[in-house]
Amino acid sequence: MKGRTNARRGPGKRVAVLGAGSWGTTFAKILADGGADVVLWARRPELAREIQEAKRNSDYLPGVNLPLGLRSTSRLDLALAGAEQVFVSVPSQSLRENLKVIAPHLHAEAIVVSLMKGVEKGTGLRMSEVIAEVLTIDPSQIAVISGPNLALEIAKEQPTAAVVSSTSLETAQAVASLATNRYFRSFVNTDVIGTEFGGVLKNLIAVAIGIVDGVGYGENTKASIITRGLVEMTDFAVAYGAHPETLSGLAGLGDLIATSQSPLSRNNTAGRLLGQGYHLNDVVKQMQQTTEGLASVGPVLELARAKGVEMPIVEQVRQVLAGTLDPKDIAPHLTTDDEPQGERTLDGQAQGGSALRRALKRTLDQLRHGGRSAAGDRP
Amino acid sequence: MKGRTNARRGPGKRVAVLGAGSWGTTFAKILADGGADVVLWARRPELAREIQEAKRNSDYLPGVNLPLGLRSTSRLDLALAGAEQVFVSVPSQSLRENLKVIAPHLHAEAIVVSLMKGVEKGTGLRMSEVIAEVLTIDPSQIAVISGPNLALEIAKEQPTAAVVSSTSLETAQAVASLATNRYFRSFVNTDVIGTEFGGVLKNLIAVAIGIVDGVGYGENTKASIITRGLVEMTDFAVAYGAHPETLSGLAGLGDLIATSQSPLSRNNTAGRLLGQGYHLNDVVKQMQQTTEGLASVGPVLELARAKGVEMPIVEQVRQVLAGTLDPKDIAPHLTTDDEPQGERTLDGQAQGGSALRRALKRTLDQLRHGGRSAAGDRP
Repeated sequence: MKGRTNARRGPGKRVAVLGAGSWGTTFAKILADGGADVVLWARRPELAREIQEAKRNSDYLPGVNLPLGLRSTSRLDLALAGAEQVFVSVPSQSLRENLKVIAPHLHAEAIVVSLMKGVEKGTGLRMSEVIAEVLTIDPSQIAVISGPNLALEIAKEQPTAAVVSSTSLETAQAVASLATNRYFRSFVNTDVIGTEFGGVLKNLIAVAIGIVDGVGYGENTKASIITRGLVEMTDFAVAYGAHPETLSGLAGLGDLIATSQSPLSRNNTAGRLLGQGYHLNDVVKQMQQTTEGLASVGPVLELARAKGVEMPIVEQVRQVLAGTLDPKDIAPHLTTDDEPQGERTLDGQAQGGSALRRALKRTLDQLRHGGRSAAGDRP
Repeated sequence: MKGRTNARRGPGKRVAVLGAGSWGTTFAKILADGGADVVLWARRPELAREIQEAKRNSDYLPGVNLPLGLRSTSRLDLALAGAEQVFVSVPSQSLRENLKVIAPHLHAEAIVVSLMKGVEKGTGLRMSEVIAEVLTIDPSQIAVISGPNLALEIAKEQPTAAVVSSTSLETAQAVASLATNRYFRSFVNTDVIGTEFGGVLKNLIAVAIGIVDGVGYGENTKASIITRGLVEMTDFAVAYGAHPETLSGLAGLGDLIATSQSPLSRNNTAGRLLGQGYHLNDVVKQMQQTTEGLASVGPVLELARAKGVEMPIVEQVRQVLAGTLDPKDIAPHLTTDDEPQGERTLDGQAQGGSALRRALKRTLDQLRHGGRSAAGDRP
């Protein structure tokens, strides 16, 4: 199969991967193992040298042998020269600054692919939106990749699938054909909004899973939270223009499950510490780097409110973070996302204008073709 | 909340639970903790005596204290006398024989609730269909309960949600209001077909998860299989009249995730042994009792073929069982359920009349309102 795959795409296309953290390095390996001619840009010259000469990235992927054909440099101009596709994997909050440095070296027709999962603070823009704004290129030149993609597992060549999304199906297919090899398979879609929001929203549900894990609850509880959490993710993303089926696919459900099960996930770990009773301040200190899921709770709830979307699980997470809800009380609440038997009301979200909200929700459910939330399992 | 809940349903209604295995006993506890007046029927007098007197079931739920108000008997007539709702939890292949004994003692207007997940061998009937056929009662008197319900976790009072389904919404609500307490919450729907098939089909995907687990693959692979497996489950169930949203709910996705993550699941364990390279015969011997997932592979694929539904994951499981596919080769195949780039063809399923099948699949996808399989993540 590998031979046919390579034959299909011809001799290796020149591509660049920007950012040599664990995910950027892993993705460079994916592309090189798929037959592309890859140059990986590392900010630090000593890291570029290690990758170039020793075919190792001992800081981020200890013990993993990188492909012999994979080159690396700390010079952005060399990395970008002649690159037909440019894969970006820098910290999401530094993307804007990085793009300004990248712009002058970028080939006019190059496809720019985001490997990042996040929303820019302040602007609330998705990564592809930041790319479009700073580089002023056509959306058809932009793609994003998401899915159940724990870097270390892929670096060990465990079979994995991902989604490549672009408003241009042709662009998505061009990227997918390079990001395919014997252990990595790319599907395509044209729902950039859903694909990107899936990667952002799953972090919030992963924090919730971490919390109940920390409290000591088991698989039933976690499965319920994943199931109902997916409904919240879908409601939110659809309100912002996503297709519901994207959230049911690899970039939504798939990513959510992988993140929720991974002991390596930062969001999961942060939740677990909260569930064990540690205070938010101590957890943040303990985690050292930013935990995307914790940082996103406020902004996402604000965006949800703006569209009248109810997110009871994320709301409960907010209450745990604020110290107003005992972690051990979170789980029963998490499984209730509607007003059961027309009697109980949901605390927080459902108050004030709830009829309007419910009407809007019904409409959303219809838009979502069948409404998995209320219609699926009615309370 | 508990007080209000009890107040709502008034003084305990008389109900019977038939079958004192781990699930039947756990469900009797759920109902008793929700305020119902429960009599649990155990086939063996000594087990009934232990439950009645010591409030323990040391064979099936060691270490769990049962509610003081829970009564138990080995006399079917006493268990059923005056019972308004009868919950049945006997081995699925013995249901028909058990129902014949139950029938004479059953109150004419009693609601009969299946707690079982399986399909009758030979007839291919779902449990609710066997109940309707043997008891000749109206479908509005029949309900089924399913969801992410690992018995031992519920017995430990970890928060859990389930789905109560009946063609009569009123019946489902009557059952749900009894099957609700501080740690157990019941949602309702009227899609009995989807609710029952969810419980049957997830076993097959759990075997696949077990196989890749046994091979040593990680969370990415498992998340992909769950995501694509859900599409297969949905395609199948919808072809037989289910609503797609049921499969995306607790009785489909929720149950699938819980089962796939549980080290206690028999299907998961059987898969893991196969993945480690043991031969099917040895696995079957090792498992002692029937493993529903292994037994269902053939019948389900046959039913799928009859409706033109493609189930590539289940098909790969069949090949591993038959010894024609190396377990370590299963994972990459499992993530490919369509014909990618119009080039590769899928082995097995796609041959012969595949155009017809694809056309049918497209129709099914449309019926499923958006087609999560092909439309969601296109290859």
